[in-house]
Amino acid sequence: MTSRRPQSKPVPTLEDVAERARVSTATVSRCLNAPQRVSAVTRARVMAAVQELGYAPNFGAQALAARRTNTFGAIIPTMENAIFARGLQAFQEVLTDEGVTLLVASSGYRPAAEEEQIRSLIARGADALLLIGHDRTAESYAMLERRQIPHVVTWAFDPDAPRSSIGFDNRAAMATLTAEVLDRGHRRIAFISAMTNGNDRARLRVEGARSALAARGLDPAAMPLEETEYSFHHGAAAFDRLMRQTPRPTAVLCGNDVLAAGALRQAREMGLDVPGEVSITGFDDIELCEIVTPALTTVHVPHREMGRRAARLLLDMRGGDSAGERVRLEAPIKWRDTLGPAPA
Amino acid sequence: MTSRRPQSKPVPTLEDVAERARVSTATVSRCLNAPQRVSAVTRARVMAAVQELGYAPNFGAQALAARRTNTFGAIIPTMENAIFARGLQAFQEVLTDEGVTLLVASSGYRPAAEEEQIRSLIARGADALLLIGHDRTAESYAMLERRQIPHVVTWAFDPDAPRSSIGFDNRAAMATLTAEVLDRGHRRIAFISAMTNGNDRARLRVEGARSALAARGLDPAAMPLEETEYSFHHGAAAFDRLMRQTPRPTAVLCGNDVLAAGALRQAREMGLDVPGEVSITGFDDIELCEIVTPALTTVHVPHREMGRRAARLLLDMRGGDSAGERVRLEAPIKWRDTLGPAPA
Repeated sequence: MTSRRPQSKPVPTLEDVAERARVSTATVSRCLNAPQRVSAVTRARVMAAVQELGYAPNFGAQALAARRTNTFGAIIPTMENAIFARGLQAFQEVLTDEGVTLLVASSGYRPAAEEEQIRSLIARGADALLLIGHDRTAESYAMLERRQIPHVVTWAFDPDAPRSSIGFDNRAAMATLTAEVLDRGHRRIAFISAMTNGNDRARLRVEGARSALAARGLDPAAMPLEETEYSFHHGAAAFDRLMRQTPRPTAVLCGNDVLAAGALRQAREMGLDVPGEVSITGFDDIELCEIVTPALTTVHVPHREMGRRAARLLLDMRGGDSAGERVRLEAPIKWRDTLGPAPA
Repeated sequence: MTSRRPQSKPVPTLEDVAERARVSTATVSRCLNAPQRVSAVTRARVMAAVQELGYAPNFGAQALAARRTNTFGAIIPTMENAIFARGLQAFQEVLTDEGVTLLVASSGYRPAAEEEQIRSLIARGADALLLIGHDRTAESYAMLERRQIPHVVTWAFDPDAPRSSIGFDNRAAMATLTAEVLDRGHRRIAFISAMTNGNDRARLRVEGARSALAARGLDPAAMPLEETEYSFHHGAAAFDRLMRQTPRPTAVLCGNDVLAAGALRQAREMGLDVPGEVSITGFDDIELCEIVTPALTTVHVPHREMGRRAARLLLDMRGGDSAGERVRLEAPIKWRDTLGPAPA
């Protein structure tokens, strides 16, 4: 991991930095791995030497000096659409305050890709990992166990799952929202979902809607379901297909806000009044919800709290101050303007 | 970078994998660092051994075996608002096809944070780095030079900058759009910009608007400018401040689409017709532009082409097949519905 060209200059070592900063190699290592444990004066002198020499810590030396790289990893399904952005931002803010660098990988909702990324982040020396949801390959979990990497599952909460998680109950949240839709007299309810394969959040949201229908004695299997890719365009196209059915749905539940925003746009293009002729709901409560017209009624996901708490938990787990925990956060309905009574 | 608990099992070595897979350690290393150079059969056997043993490549061994980690880094200013998401997605798709893992860091538009992230990605053994824009600390560039890390600057093109870049001319693009606004009779033109400190893209877009005004004999310094943080809310607040001025601007240029979407929402809340009473333009052409009402006229940034070409260039530079290049892509106006003639 040193320089990449044979003809490059000799690579400065930890010893070179220690000598130049007139401190022990252990002190240099502490500055790099646990800066809060070093006086500001010493740290300034060491970091100056690090910069002057262009020193980049070497894994071997670092592993010997302190069994951590002070880098955490996060693997998210996508960097698009800002679904995970706010939570990740809060996660990073806490880590930054602790001098920890965050490296993020995006799996494209592909469990095989996530497995490679987990392997790579472990190889790069990540001290701890933030993961999204419970769906991943057995080998992914096996690697985390074998290498004893502290990790936490977010964006989902499964009381039966054995591992640390800070999330919310996707199924219960969607069931609650669906009950509110039913309370407003809607019976022809359709659902636009993200692809559920490898995405437990999406799957649980569909299950939540079905369970609410069943609880009212309605047939869950009769609910029209469009499973589609995660984009405005796909949401609009799915809404278009649903509204061509007869009888037409009076309410369309969307598995996330991006699909709902696409549905809203399509409703506008079809000249349909929302919520007068058709109600539309989302899930996530990203900032987009307040930008679309009418503003989107959705489920509020506690992005920032989830990110902050996941960071603190992983810091505690790395430090040996926690063996992990399982926290269920609330995900309440965020009332705006797209859910109304069923048309007469 | 091995296991993090004293009591953990002994860590499997490259030699263990080679023995189990019945190949040489060099072959194992090739599988991990240049899989395309190993037969599928051998690779399958080696990767099976890697998984069975839970082996994670060790930097020391890897640096000896092949001077690359097969991991690229990207440092972007923010993961929010999907500005960089599409380009980064295209960047990652090319890398994935080549078996390269991408790790991303988000600097929060803070050059000092970016410097730490560059240092960390070098320490983690990144083979090459994608960077956004030219504004960064001298030390950031010095590290890249010292360690000879292939890197490319994207989202900006500066003919005078000495380093590899695949971008577009932010100044010229905004000047062209401003000229179109002037052609429609607008003279009271205001600008909502992202914070320009440490953000050359934002600064150049403001300069582009001013240069277009000056080219028509108008006073660039007379253009009202609101510099604000990057969010819908801040865009809306800035638009509100601008529209309280008398005489009121008839056109508001926004430095990016997110600020423009906030301005559009505020115009709606103020009961202002767009573009009848006030024209609003954006910059970036993210998918959001088609979601807002009316659809946003903006500057199209070639996100995907930029990402793809940056990936290919870095792969060539890493392989020694390129010493780098400087490419200026086009960023044409994307005509939609928010730019109209100045009100009489």
